[in-house]
Formats: sequence, C-alpha cells, structure tokens
Amino acid sequence: MISQLTITAPRQGLHEISDQVAAVVSESALQAGLCTVFIKHTSASLIVQENADPSAVRDLEQWLNRLVVEHDPLFTHTSEGADDMPSHIKTALTATSVAVPIINGQLALGSWQGIFLWEHRHARVPRTVIVHIGE
Amino acid sequence: MISQLTITAPRQGLHEISDQVAAVVSESALQAGLCTVFIKHTSASLIVQENADPSAVRDLEQWLNRLVVEHDPLFTHTSEGADDMPSHIKTALTATSVAVPIINGQLALGSWQGIFLWEHRHARVPRTVIVHIGE
Amino acid sequence: MISQLTITAPRQGLHEISDQVAAVVSESALQAGLCTVFIKHTSASLIVQENADPSAVRDLEQWLNRLVVEHDPLFTHTSEGADDMPSHIKTALTATSVAVPIINGQLALGSWQGIFLWEHRHARVPRTVIVHIGE
Repeated sequence: MISQLTITAPRQGLHEISDQVAAVVSESALQAGLCTVFIKHTSASLIVQENADPSAVRDLEQWLNRLVVEHDPLFTHTSEGADDMPSHIKTALTATSVAVPIINGQLALGSWQGIFLWEHRHARVPRTVIVHIGE
Repeated sequence: MISQLTITAPRQGLHEISDQVAAVVSESALQAGLCTVFIKHTSASLIVQENADPSAVRDLEQWLNRLVVEHDPLFTHTSEGADDMPSHIKTALTATSVAVPIINGQLALGSWQGIFLWEHRHARVPRTVIVHIGE
Repeated sequence: MISQLTITAPRQGLHEISDQVAAVVSESALQAGLCTVFIKHTSASLIVQENADPSAVRDLEQWLNRLVVEHDPLFTHTSEGADDMPSHIKTALTATSVAVPIINGQLALGSWQGIFLWEHRHARVPRTVIVHIGE
C-alpha cells in the first residue's frame, strides 16, 4: 500500500509527522511489516529523533545551522537563494527516506522517538511525502 | 518476519552486530529478500562500515567525537548529561535504520562490510534493535 | 526481485545511476512497491540529490571535501592511501542504502531528484550495487 501526503512545515526546522504516518499504517490494517517514508525533495529531509523534550531538536537544528552556513564563499549554486545550497547539504547529511517496523498494527517507534520532516528552507513549501507499507 | 534483539555495547563506539542479524536471516530461511534493521533509540544509531581493520572504525569514532563535542556552549538540552545532546546529533548524522539485501539465504554484505550498533552514550545501556525480513 | 549492477564512476564525486536503477524497476514490471538500492562498499556511498543543476552536486562535493580532509593527523588507518579514511567517514555521513517508492511502474522520484553513487576514492573502482524490488 502506498499513500501520498502533502505537508507544509510551519517554519525552517524539524516538524513532527508521526501522526500522519501512523494514520496510514492504521488504514492499511497490516499487523506486522515495514513502513518506509520517502520525501520527494532535496531541500527538505526526514529523520527519526527525540520528540519528548523540544530543546533536543532545537539544539540539533542550531548545531547543524552552525556547521552548514549560508553565504559560504565556497558555494557557486546560489541562484535559488542563500538557503538553497545549505538545504541540499543538510539533506545529504540526514536522510531522504526512513524505515520503521510495524508490530501489532502500529509503528514500532521507541518511547521518545518521532518521525520528523526537516524543512531546510526558510519559505513555507508544500512537501510531498510518500508512505509505503509492505509485509 | 520480525525479530527483536536486545544488545548492550561494551563501551561508547561502534559494536558489530552482523552475527546477531545474520542469525535472524538464517532462522527466516528466506532465500532472497531484504533485511531492514531498526534501532528504537535516538542516542545510539546503526551503520554499515568496514569490519576488517579495527583502526578504521576507531578513526571514524575519533573524527566524529571531534566534530560533535560535549559541553558545546550552544547546547540547552543538558539535563540528561553532557553526552546526551552529542548523541542525538551523531544519530542524526548516521542512521536509525539500515537495509541489506538477502541473496542465497545470506546477508549480501561486501567482503569488508559489517553492521554496527554505534553507542553514543558513555554508560552501558541495553538497546532494542528490530530486524525485519521481507520478500 | 534482486538485480546486481557493476558501476565504475568516471572520477571521485557524485555519479548519477537513476537510469540503471529505473531499468531494473522496468524489467520487474511491478506497478507499486519499493525499490531499495544497496552498495557493497564502505568507501563509496549512495545518495538521492538534485540532478538538474550540476553546480549543486559540485558544491556538495566541495563542502564535504573541506569538512573531511585527507592527511588529518588524527588518522591512524592510513595504509590504504590518504583518501581511504576520508572515504569511510563520508560513507558514514551519507548512506549505504536508499529506498525509493515505485508508483505506476516507475521510481517515484521528485522532479529534480536523482539517485547517485558517490565515489569517495580517487582511483576508478568497479562498484557492486544491488537493487531490490519488493511489493
């Protein structure tokens, strides 16, 4: 089963989408299997991270923003904005797809794990996310 | 088929788990398919790396420890210890799940590839790893 | 269905392999499912990135070459050449496998997404890439 979601993160940074993915798993009625989430973009990515304390994802965002800076003199790919090339690099360092097992009809995430869309651009962009459910 | 493993790495760093994963593949008796390994934590991760010369993974650990330092003044998420926030970042830069094809009933790893659990905390923590075997 | 490809990148850097992967998907005749690509090496990796403007992948390569330098005094694993340990690190920071959904018998890549083999060594090395197609 394959389902397509359109998600617009409210701002640059990590935006949890566990509920939307869980709804697709629920709809599939599959008891055991694998859920693979894929994002059809190269300036936003996916990641499984801590969803308990918001300071964890905030620090993660700040840390990566310091490692991958805008206006790096090394960049030549600048026509799409100062945040475009950093977005591609951040996507390369994180993931375009994440896989989570399904056990007892539910995503087998750890107690403090959530699935996040990581929006790397400043603008609000609708992102297409595909959820594949397989046995 | 889904199997759950509990693995405690002896220390911070890469700890090979290829044998435990291969045992699940063997038990499944599947000749061709895909093995996906998932870790239910955000302060330990999974990675496929060289398992021939121990100096390779040691250098990799040292390099990442230099890139992601403890006591970074940027961190606000510090209540769970100085090694907690670096653990989340290291997990983000590596992977929460890895997929390896199954050919002739065995993990189709390269000659020098191994599957590793990368423990990012200093304490010895039992980690839950889920192995999904699909056609 | 599992297919094995041998690919030799013309030089260090990102080398698009979308067409070779799409050919395997086509051959499978599967209309909906998941395509997982795996590389049997630890000094080359896989990545989904922008394939429209070549300057994007060039900047990405340059950025990572600056982050992970050869002849780092930290390295002890140097017997296989100055580009070997950086290759392992770059592989750890990117991916050994990528998954792309199959919709309407085709890879559901975004408009500007391509699948790339990222060769991290300077020498031209034949690389084994496995394509798994599952429902």
